[in-house]
Amino acid sequence: MNTKNVKAYGAESATAPLNSLQINRRTPTPHDVEIEILFCGVCHSDLHMARNEWHHTVYPVVPGHEIVGRVTRVGDHVSKFKVGDLAAVGCMVDSCRECEYCKEGLEQYCEPGNTLTYNSPDKHLGTPTYGGYSESVVVDENYVLHVPANLDLAATAPLLCAGITTWSPLKHWKVGPGTKVGVVGIGGLGHMAIKLAKAMGAYVVVFTTSVAKFEDAKRLGADEVVLSKDSGQMSKQARKLHFIVDAVSAEHDVNAYLNCLKVDGTLALVGAPELPLPIAAFSLIPTRRSFSGSTIGSIAETQEMLDFCGKHNITADIELINIQQINEAYDRLLKGDVHYRFVIDMASVKN
Amino acid sequence: MNTKNVKAYGAESATAPLNSLQINRRTPTPHDVEIEILFCGVCHSDLHMARNEWHHTVYPVVPGHEIVGRVTRVGDHVSKFKVGDLAAVGCMVDSCRECEYCKEGLEQYCEPGNTLTYNSPDKHLGTPTYGGYSESVVVDENYVLHVPANLDLAATAPLLCAGITTWSPLKHWKVGPGTKVGVVGIGGLGHMAIKLAKAMGAYVVVFTTSVAKFEDAKRLGADEVVLSKDSGQMSKQARKLHFIVDAVSAEHDVNAYLNCLKVDGTLALVGAPELPLPIAAFSLIPTRRSFSGSTIGSIAETQEMLDFCGKHNITADIELINIQQINEAYDRLLKGDVHYRFVIDMASVKN
Repeated sequence: MNTKNVKAYGAESATAPLNSLQINRRTPTPHDVEIEILFCGVCHSDLHMARNEWHHTVYPVVPGHEIVGRVTRVGDHVSKFKVGDLAAVGCMVDSCRECEYCKEGLEQYCEPGNTLTYNSPDKHLGTPTYGGYSESVVVDENYVLHVPANLDLAATAPLLCAGITTWSPLKHWKVGPGTKVGVVGIGGLGHMAIKLAKAMGAYVVVFTTSVAKFEDAKRLGADEVVLSKDSGQMSKQARKLHFIVDAVSAEHDVNAYLNCLKVDGTLALVGAPELPLPIAAFSLIPTRRSFSGSTIGSIAETQEMLDFCGKHNITADIELINIQQINEAYDRLLKGDVHYRFVIDMASVKN
Repeated sequence: MNTKNVKAYGAESATAPLNSLQINRRTPTPHDVEIEILFCGVCHSDLHMARNEWHHTVYPVVPGHEIVGRVTRVGDHVSKFKVGDLAAVGCMVDSCRECEYCKEGLEQYCEPGNTLTYNSPDKHLGTPTYGGYSESVVVDENYVLHVPANLDLAATAPLLCAGITTWSPLKHWKVGPGTKVGVVGIGGLGHMAIKLAKAMGAYVVVFTTSVAKFEDAKRLGADEVVLSKDSGQMSKQARKLHFIVDAVSAEHDVNAYLNCLKVDGTLALVGAPELPLPIAAFSLIPTRRSFSGSTIGSIAETQEMLDFCGKHNITADIELINIQQINEAYDRLLKGDVHYRFVIDMASVKN
């Protein structure tokens, strides 16, 4: 298979800083789209994978799954994109297309496992897949998204992971006008959950451990902000909410939030704490509540979310960096010091 | 208010054995039904409450919420029952009738709290309510159930708690033909879950810690039986089930069962372990699974379940005892030594 050598940024080992390197991209096959990457968001997963914190990283790893760019070449049978179009790629670039979930359009739950945008076996080249910290990417058109023309491109990138990861549960659990939604944690995911839930017409209650975040929560769209360590404020929310998006990846007391749900309410975890979370039977049984989880979203859902964001002019709050600042950005990410997503200006990879 | 003194069996303190005592029942008001109690099932909650293990027992306590009997008197405005009818009473005898849940017909989730059959404030007499370990009971007709004439009356009693507690989640999560259902634990609740799920048309997989229970599980209706401590047998069930009823009230590894669920599957806890259960984020997130709970069922659902049991000739497997054997029965209950529910022949209370 013909390939092209392109510039990228990645890690050669779990302890090495990210650095400039070269990777191969395939020449587009008949169903492929080649995209020049303009912006790539920085997700906490990038850091986990670069440092082998999930214990299955293959090196070198090129992270990045919040990709926005412009189509530079299309395969002969591509019908959805043409050269010059804006295009986006999220967390997956392929799936089996044959299992019950792929057939239902739930590629995020592909039974044998979908092909992730980085560090997944690449069906074409045999190498691992390489992500968006690179000049360009080649992806089957069925896994490429259209980007609304009115959105700021850099601030659109985080929609591809942070956006869809919160959109999918909000839609799945039918959030809309008349529902009261809780958002736990105001970070990359949480700040998107607030914006999206508000635009969907819900009444949004934001839970935070810090009074300093009250003002920002309101600016992002919160109707109410609750200091989660104040038991008086928490007890006022008891049995009040239909649904909660929990975007906290540190240890925290989920029971305190479950108790804010009405009968038949669901708390969906989208952050992934490392250790199991203790759940009291009495947080669930007397009110038929559910403690659930959700991961990214399907391709169709991702397009739906992007179109919705175009219509409602929603993007992420970002800090734009050059790729040469990525290691420093990771350090700040670890401290939670980002408002609310780093996005890399990928023109810098050519420097 | 006029009352009648009747014989009952109850506990005078957390450490006292149950003994004969006298309680007052109100003279039926216009909407009340007076029922001569023929049989009363013995639920583990009876024991918890008698021994104040939930820390809110008011003494004397008269347990019993699996009541089957015959109508002996009806109030002037009663339209659903007449003298001589079979009748049953389950875990609740009233509710607020005004909250959103009562209006929806979900009295089991009544917002201010429903009136439980025993140890709840009695709206009429100001005393606590007294349960089914007694000669008779007086209940508003809207909280009394009809009993199918074809069923064995003693073996019908456990349907009023063990039956409805498993029926309600099976119905709520849409179990039927084409669904694969897991049942964890073969006790009072679990054995009913097997019978009901099978009769609803589901494929039933029973999980047990004991090979000795395999044969009985199959007799009760299991299509497959899995030894839960055998990791090989467990891994064969990975991602196979649509729904699981978990009827274990001891500590156990819920993650092992969650991992048997397909995408969007739910595990509903109906047993109530005392300590919080540790739930791994990765048991939920990659497959959008839910860890849920459920309690008893509504009045309409309870009637639906009884009618279904009449149609399919389903009752509990019971050991019939006299009320004088109740303390011994509690001791055996604590050892899990019952197949699968004690039922008291209430004629014995007159001895």
